[in-house]
Amino acid sequence: MKTLIAAALALAIATPALAQNAAALRDAALKDDTAWNVVRSLTSEVGARPAGSLAAARARDWGVAKLRELGFSNIKVEPYTVTAWERGPESAELTAPFRRPLNILGLGRSIPTPAGGVEGEVVVFASYDAMLSATDRQIAGKIVLVNQPMVRAQDGSGYGAINRNRTQGASEAARRGAIAYLTRSLATDDANNPHTGAMTYAAGVRQIPAAAVSVPDANVLADLAAKGPVRIKLSMMSRTVPGAPAWDVSGEMIGTGRPDEIIVIGGHLDSWDVGTGAVDDAAGIAITTAAAKIVGQARPRRTIRVVMWGAEEIGESGARYGRDHAAEVPKIVAASESDNGAGAIFALALPPGTRTKPEFAELQSTLAPLKINVVAAPATGSGADTAALHQAGVPAFSFDQDSSKYFDLHHSQNDTLEQIDPGDLAQNVAAWTVVLHFIANSTVDLRVPAPAR
Amino acid sequence: MKTLIAAALALAIATPALAQNAAALRDAALKDDTAWNVVRSLTSEVGARPAGSLAAARARDWGVAKLRELGFSNIKVEPYTVTAWERGPESAELTAPFRRPLNILGLGRSIPTPAGGVEGEVVVFASYDAMLSATDRQIAGKIVLVNQPMVRAQDGSGYGAINRNRTQGASEAARRGAIAYLTRSLATDDANNPHTGAMTYAAGVRQIPAAAVSVPDANVLADLAAKGPVRIKLSMMSRTVPGAPAWDVSGEMIGTGRPDEIIVIGGHLDSWDVGTGAVDDAAGIAITTAAAKIVGQARPRRTIRVVMWGAEEIGESGARYGRDHAAEVPKIVAASESDNGAGAIFALALPPGTRTKPEFAELQSTLAPLKINVVAAPATGSGADTAALHQAGVPAFSFDQDSSKYFDLHHSQNDTLEQIDPGDLAQNVAAWTVVLHFIANSTVDLRVPAPAR
Repeated sequence: MKTLIAAALALAIATPALAQNAAALRDAALKDDTAWNVVRSLTSEVGARPAGSLAAARARDWGVAKLRELGFSNIKVEPYTVTAWERGPESAELTAPFRRPLNILGLGRSIPTPAGGVEGEVVVFASYDAMLSATDRQIAGKIVLVNQPMVRAQDGSGYGAINRNRTQGASEAARRGAIAYLTRSLATDDANNPHTGAMTYAAGVRQIPAAAVSVPDANVLADLAAKGPVRIKLSMMSRTVPGAPAWDVSGEMIGTGRPDEIIVIGGHLDSWDVGTGAVDDAAGIAITTAAAKIVGQARPRRTIRVVMWGAEEIGESGARYGRDHAAEVPKIVAASESDNGAGAIFALALPPGTRTKPEFAELQSTLAPLKINVVAAPATGSGADTAALHQAGVPAFSFDQDSSKYFDLHHSQNDTLEQIDPGDLAQNVAAWTVVLHFIANSTVDLRVPAPAR
Repeated sequence: MKTLIAAALALAIATPALAQNAAALRDAALKDDTAWNVVRSLTSEVGARPAGSLAAARARDWGVAKLRELGFSNIKVEPYTVTAWERGPESAELTAPFRRPLNILGLGRSIPTPAGGVEGEVVVFASYDAMLSATDRQIAGKIVLVNQPMVRAQDGSGYGAINRNRTQGASEAARRGAIAYLTRSLATDDANNPHTGAMTYAAGVRQIPAAAVSVPDANVLADLAAKGPVRIKLSMMSRTVPGAPAWDVSGEMIGTGRPDEIIVIGGHLDSWDVGTGAVDDAAGIAITTAAAKIVGQARPRRTIRVVMWGAEEIGESGARYGRDHAAEVPKIVAASESDNGAGAIFALALPPGTRTKPEFAELQSTLAPLKINVVAAPATGSGADTAALHQAGVPAFSFDQDSSKYFDLHHSQNDTLEQIDPGDLAQNVAAWTVVLHFIANSTVDLRVPAPAR
């Protein structure tokens, strides 16, 4: 009984102080320009940095230098190899009813076309389901275009709904006899630049070249195809590079009380080869690094590790990290990746039961001025690079960011520094700062759900 | 006295009827989809159509067919030759402190680079005036970049303020010893696509290659140059084609009472070679054609002629039209070109004194529901293709359109149908309909100013 009272008293004293510190750190984070400077530095001094490229090696060196400059310890470069994909010269041209160039970007992992390109009549479908319902006779020997618009949504749910158009469309078209596959760019705006991204071939299905067409050009193709036969010539000279070098870069703010209890956060250092990878994902690198620095300088109990994953876009770094850090899983108290751009956060999800634990009682009120709700539903994951950790039992926390404009930029040449709102970026840093502060100064095992109330 | 009273009575009867008809035509125009269909047809069925290109010949045929389809008479194709400029393969690359591609578009009329390209250190100026103030020592042997942002303004005045950066910068840089000239794109947004446009070389000055850089890439170059030496390699394979064919296409709605009194309106049929020339200037073609059709079908007194000028972007069609139609000038009662996009109209300027003439008394109230003011200052011109006519004494009327977003699109790949608001386009048609109706049904000589009141 005495112990319980002492514990309750200790909590009563500790919690308001923790919250007070959290509020002070939150307000400091809102004024801190570390994240902005990190994004600006990575996008201008490195630029686009696909895994396996020379630029990715420059990004690795940049990451090490930046973590050192910001006061991180235990800075590590973990090398591994990936099967890289390298874009070559690409072009697409309308050849009938008249000649004009088309704006395309090959999809990551697509095979190249034959040297002379591939030419054929286009068959346009207004949706992916319409393609799936088509007869082989409609598709065989043709180039398929799926011209399905993407829905703009605050939670980015338009992307999940249409993702298969990019990732699986080529094999579905090939099953029905297509000679090439085009998807309308997965984009929420109508700008004339295509959006790339990775695709995969289904096992046992003939592989055909796959590319994304800009929204306006997809609309023109649909307009023309409604009037008569339309032909396209597509030429793509990509290269697949097995055994290409990649690296994860990491650094730590060492805990003062429980240094062996580690919170793993970060973003991915690689990007697509167009634009400068500002919202995807220099922003995630910047937000987590800046928050870790702010909380770390306040000397928290637990260790905060920032990881800059090196091969997210081609889907390799998450599994690698989980595999190579399997022995460490018991020490990792929580993990989260920031990989949804730089839009303002509107919701936080925590591990099951965490929200109602007394140690986190002040979390909601500290986040409230940032206009963030702590939602009742627990976090189910946080990003591709932390998925293997979560799979192995590491608790996840995750933020919902306003993604209304994210897919105007995603995987396109417009993903540049100019598209980031400094105020929104700072709000992200403040939110991460608050949550890191609470978790890093707690002693709670987030793996153990709180008792039902 | 009797004559004056009769005239006053006739006016008192005629004017309200005219206004009533104008209001009915205005409301019909707001619901008419001719203009939208014209833009859609020209942008998808023809696409980009620079003067001198094969596409320009297709545009000519399109224009003839469209005027016929819409019920115009006296359809004419007036051929002439221009010195065309044809873009070839282009590329630009940062070569130091590291390699990365840069988004550029050569400027129209620029000379090509030598076959191997031109490479040199970049010197960045934050404004055009800063370049003009620089010493030859700062510029000689280098590639100049003027990185001056463009101001967003409802009246489009940001363009006039910065136009010399594109048109005259190369010669000013060359005077100071530069080996190539780059301008930050004349754009009001931060998208990563460059904006092209014509430039000219000053007589007697060494000609150097000139290109526009995308806004984000210009910012990166400025960032890097602030830290150390930056080098660029520029390669541009353009061609100048003297004696290239061009055409103006025109058609008329013949007046029922005074067919020899002609109102000349129109837009330009040529476009830049990127995008589909939707706001520049399929919109102008569509607005004037649709309004002429609507007013023409109501059988006005005077003739309305729509001209689709064929070489505005390279600055040739206006002078040609004025020259070849000089004998006709006494018959042209007024002229106006629509070449400012598809933004809503907010002001109308009329020939000197016209605003206060009794025949135009109801014009303001008929335009008011469209949220358009008739301004006191008289029109001083209307567009590049009508400038020679106005110079020769043809009265001008002109509309001010909301240009806030026009320079996000202007001369870039984003100039496509998707960027046009159908409601704004219809408002333009309605405004032109009202003004055409008043002028075409009046007998007033707009050359003669009204007496001072």
